[in-house]
Amino acid sequence: MTWTRKHLLDIESLSPEEIITVLDTAKAFKAVGERAIKKVPALRGKTVVNLFVEPSTRTRTSFELSEQRLSADIINFNTEASSLKKGETLKDTARNLEALNVDFIVIRHSASGAPAFLSRVLQASVINAGDGAHEHPTQALLDAFTIRERKGRIAGLKVTILGDILYSRVARSDVWALTKLGAQVTLCGPPTLVPREFEQMGAKVTCDVEEAIRDADIINLLRIQHERQRKAMFPSLGEYTSFFGLSKARLARTKPDALIMHPGPINRGVEIDSNIADSDRSVILQQVTNGLAVRMAVLFLVNGGKGPAEVGG
Amino acid sequence: MTWTRKHLLDIESLSPEEIITVLDTAKAFKAVGERAIKKVPALRGKTVVNLFVEPSTRTRTSFELSEQRLSADIINFNTEASSLKKGETLKDTARNLEALNVDFIVIRHSASGAPAFLSRVLQASVINAGDGAHEHPTQALLDAFTIRERKGRIAGLKVTILGDILYSRVARSDVWALTKLGAQVTLCGPPTLVPREFEQMGAKVTCDVEEAIRDADIINLLRIQHERQRKAMFPSLGEYTSFFGLSKARLARTKPDALIMHPGPINRGVEIDSNIADSDRSVILQQVTNGLAVRMAVLFLVNGGKGPAEVGG
Amino acid sequence: MTWTRKHLLDIESLSPEEIITVLDTAKAFKAVGERAIKKVPALRGKTVVNLFVEPSTRTRTSFELSEQRLSADIINFNTEASSLKKGETLKDTARNLEALNVDFIVIRHSASGAPAFLSRVLQASVINAGDGAHEHPTQALLDAFTIRERKGRIAGLKVTILGDILYSRVARSDVWALTKLGAQVTLCGPPTLVPREFEQMGAKVTCDVEEAIRDADIINLLRIQHERQRKAMFPSLGEYTSFFGLSKARLARTKPDALIMHPGPINRGVEIDSNIADSDRSVILQQVTNGLAVRMAVLFLVNGGKGPAEVGG
Repeated sequence: MTWTRKHLLDIESLSPEEIITVLDTAKAFKAVGERAIKKVPALRGKTVVNLFVEPSTRTRTSFELSEQRLSADIINFNTEASSLKKGETLKDTARNLEALNVDFIVIRHSASGAPAFLSRVLQASVINAGDGAHEHPTQALLDAFTIRERKGRIAGLKVTILGDILYSRVARSDVWALTKLGAQVTLCGPPTLVPREFEQMGAKVTCDVEEAIRDADIINLLRIQHERQRKAMFPSLGEYTSFFGLSKARLARTKPDALIMHPGPINRGVEIDSNIADSDRSVILQQVTNGLAVRMAVLFLVNGGKGPAEVGG
Repeated sequence: MTWTRKHLLDIESLSPEEIITVLDTAKAFKAVGERAIKKVPALRGKTVVNLFVEPSTRTRTSFELSEQRLSADIINFNTEASSLKKGETLKDTARNLEALNVDFIVIRHSASGAPAFLSRVLQASVINAGDGAHEHPTQALLDAFTIRERKGRIAGLKVTILGDILYSRVARSDVWALTKLGAQVTLCGPPTLVPREFEQMGAKVTCDVEEAIRDADIINLLRIQHERQRKAMFPSLGEYTSFFGLSKARLARTKPDALIMHPGPINRGVEIDSNIADSDRSVILQQVTNGLAVRMAVLFLVNGGKGPAEVGG
Repeated sequence: MTWTRKHLLDIESLSPEEIITVLDTAKAFKAVGERAIKKVPALRGKTVVNLFVEPSTRTRTSFELSEQRLSADIINFNTEASSLKKGETLKDTARNLEALNVDFIVIRHSASGAPAFLSRVLQASVINAGDGAHEHPTQALLDAFTIRERKGRIAGLKVTILGDILYSRVARSDVWALTKLGAQVTLCGPPTLVPREFEQMGAKVTCDVEEAIRDADIINLLRIQHERQRKAMFPSLGEYTSFFGLSKARLARTKPDALIMHPGPINRGVEIDSNIADSDRSVILQQVTNGLAVRMAVLFLVNGGKGPAEVGG
């Protein structure tokens, strides 16, 4: 299928065929990343602004490297130094950036809907790098890419997402992406952190961790965002670990070929046992590697690339 | 006229012909910015340091993109991380940067005269990106460029600059540039913020805002620098807005083709009504776009470019 | 001699021949830095991460420019914005960076041994940009380069290092490099700051500054790290200056062709008289210039370059 979108704002509005187009294009870019010279000229002379109003070293670094490997010109625009501190609105900041003949704005923002808002007021392409508790589409795409790469398919798989679902844009985007591609997604965590509303998105919701992991092909552990919670949603980290952390004992009760995923950065000893994170059951570092390829693919496609056949080199 | 200067320190010392050379060269670079590939190799293998001792996201971003589009290597050197915090002098910092075979230093500094000082102790070309309350030459050049582009000429126009003149390097550079090119400049603001000394530069000074805007072809609104004032120079923001802000009612008493300018970032509802800022009377975003072309032109000329005929592609 | 190392972790483990290979390669790169276009394509399509967990503007800038001139893609990863703040371990950070297909990690860290640790857990090449009080190998290499360039040789020279030896990774790396190349190194400073253990490295240790400088061919002044000392190791800066600072009176008692070095940034009037720092006895700025060439050489060699004959252009 030919890609026609100018923005990547969410997974919810994508068709399964569009998601597959991104994954196939990412596969072609992953091959580029394994060459001695990991660069293609696809975005030469184009300008990308990384507008990170909420700090994020990993996602920004992954986007920045993707942009470098596509030969784009790059401006990193972090909130610390910005005019937003002087009371300027997001709209003014974005329109001023656009007036610099900018072609792409990669935005992370604590407010859900900020990327969609920008896409309505700007001519530039907008890519959502995570907005509030809404969506984190490139994370879901790299998760889907990694699952397909390791399992050969997504349809029919059982995927369990474990942890702080309530605040998680990763969980929301993953549910959209994986259910569209035919997986059966189960969400599990403390009752305060796993709202029933997710059932309307097609996911199963449970607080029974043993049931949730027993038949799973994929177990995706979310980071406990203890720095983001306004009030305590569970009594203590220790209690969370004992009830929901992936320990060796608990791992022994999963399928022997179940893969362990995590969007990072991991809290060793909290949501995951340190040895499991480093074991061959874990695909955490492959997710990071695949994130580059997926982000190159997204930038390539919103720039007018049609699909994998055009990647070339 | 052929450009021969190695530095751009101010507008005061430029001849009208030199200013015109910058504007004509910027026009050639503006055409480059509208191509699919917005890059030229003019500064390939040259190194520019953006030495911003006073923070500025917008001006730095505009310079950085200009440098990228000229294919320069770029070092951003902000005061936060720098040795200046350890007590090193500006001279030592600059000479150390120069020892890295740096070709250009773009400097913003809170001390008037810092760029001129560096130009005397360094071999590198120095470009003033704003020094204290002294000058901001590239802002004046982009203002002149925008006026000429929209009005077809500068000579004979009536330009009113409204606001905090006393602390404004933009006002000083604008007065020099526009009077040299034959415009008649009027400065207007609260008596505490519009010193009579500006009359010696050839400008008219008044506190009567209605008189100042009535016949103006251009109304340039300065940002109220409430974060920079050491003591209050006027009673309150609300009072400033009611006496000097550009409201709809006040706009109705201007010439129908008078253009509204602002160096940004704007304080919506303070010095300018929010709707006016977004209307087709406003050229605020064109100023941003033209800033890129003007800064490319300045870097190109101080690097030894003779004028617009050499820009090519 | 052909270079075969994948990492540059210290000077201690290098052979004299390896050090000479770096210096000869740096000489070839210094010639590149004097061209109009100061770039070579040696690292095109390769990615370097500058992982500065301890802040350093100068060393990072020098590395960054070296990397740009080798045409590498560059990610600056400072601790301020990083996941290390969220409790992530250095190992996780580094392995995540590596998963982005990174080829080189240039690391500065307050913990001695951090670069060696990374070299054991990563596939990427690791370059030590200063670790705790352990080593700062590229500083020693640029010091050796500068001495050889100005004196024509290193063997047989008398080099005195003056100041805060105890906390100094520069002193440790300099002692290794210069003694391996046949110089006779004397360390001098207040008794609390010059431990006797250095004698085991082949250096002479003294607290008598007059004796230390009398016959020296090179006097290398270290920066007094007053911000790093946990408790006062000497009574006051004024007292340090009077006993160990290089004043005009003291300079008059040195050999007339003795060169003055300093790793920077200098404290004018503390460890060195301001006029001496700017005199032709000082090679401080040449050290900065040579740092670029040395860092280009190191990156080139750990990337598989064999030696100076391959630099070409």
